[in-house]
Amino acid sequence: MKRSLGPATLALPSPVWVIGTYDSANAANLMTAAWAGIACSKPPAVAISLREATYTYANIVERKAFTVNVPSASQAQVADFLGIVSGRDVDKFADAGLTAVGSELVDAPLVAEFPLSLECRLLQTVKIGLHTLFVGEIVDVKAEEGVVRHGLPAMDLVSPLLFSAGEQSYYAVGDPLGKAFRLGRDLVRKP
Amino acid sequence: MKRSLGPATLALPSPVWVIGTYDSANAANLMTAAWAGIACSKPPAVAISLREATYTYANIVERKAFTVNVPSASQAQVADFLGIVSGRDVDKFADAGLTAVGSELVDAPLVAEFPLSLECRLLQTVKIGLHTLFVGEIVDVKAEEGVVRHGLPAMDLVSPLLFSAGEQSYYAVGDPLGKAFRLGRDLVRKP
Repeated sequence: MKRSLGPATLALPSPVWVIGTYDSANAANLMTAAWAGIACSKPPAVAISLREATYTYANIVERKAFTVNVPSASQAQVADFLGIVSGRDVDKFADAGLTAVGSELVDAPLVAEFPLSLECRLLQTVKIGLHTLFVGEIVDVKAEEGVVRHGLPAMDLVSPLLFSAGEQSYYAVGDPLGKAFRLGRDLVRKP
Repeated sequence: MKRSLGPATLALPSPVWVIGTYDSANAANLMTAAWAGIACSKPPAVAISLREATYTYANIVERKAFTVNVPSASQAQVADFLGIVSGRDVDKFADAGLTAVGSELVDAPLVAEFPLSLECRLLQTVKIGLHTLFVGEIVDVKAEEGVVRHGLPAMDLVSPLLFSAGEQSYYAVGDPLGKAFRLGRDLVRKP
């Protein structure tokens, strides 16, 4: 028998993605977002949800572009810092010791030090409530050579952070559990 | 220097959520989705993206409701099975040995055996491309007592699956890494 916890954002897990944008003065900014996920295979797209009060929100509305940068577990302190302060008040790249690299494909900066980055152009803006969901088409994916296996980013090598919404805590990735679309085949009833 | 991997859905990590719906004959169905995430805090909402070809897609359009059920790492085989076969062809609850529990709040079934479930009513439908994004308001969250700590679902106790999109593989959750909005405080510049 399950217990009711009320209407709350208690799904698990959430990603920890750092969103890169330019402001109206061309300053590169970053913010950490966890209300996010992949949203479509064709065109490849992500969805990220932001409060209108954030500095990044206005940047995306104006520039119609953003990057999704995936920090490693070893970069948890920096990732958390980027969610505490606002780009209105500080230069987050400088304070975090990070390097902005201009994308050649979209009007947004990449984080040089994070192992995996997606360059996205804004496709759709969906007002929900406190958060607005931005759908961004993934125009390219950039990865450090060291996190790529068989031409693809590997979870154990990227070692992304996980966010636990109820606990407001971060977790690391653990052991591999098997291949999708294969692990469950033994349960398929034979005709 | 990063390497270009092309335009692809290679963000990490994705969740492994099992979507519960009723079909037009009131049969309970399940499907596994990884293109998903939390989408809004007020109202609390999730976004899940499905192909129009899926059986679940038509069920959500008709019933305006779905559940998000979070399997544990120990249930990886069942979770994968639910993403291989279609509810058009088989009774997935029966074949997977799972029990459908009718929600008292929304027109969709919960999975008794999974530790965490969200009851959602459809708020918005956003066509993107191959996938359509459904925004669902979280009307209630139900959790097994054993995965609740301080009144909230704990990541280490729920032990959800992670999906690695490029590798098409599952991973488990690893070690806790610290508190959000606290871990990065030492990097905040003192005035």
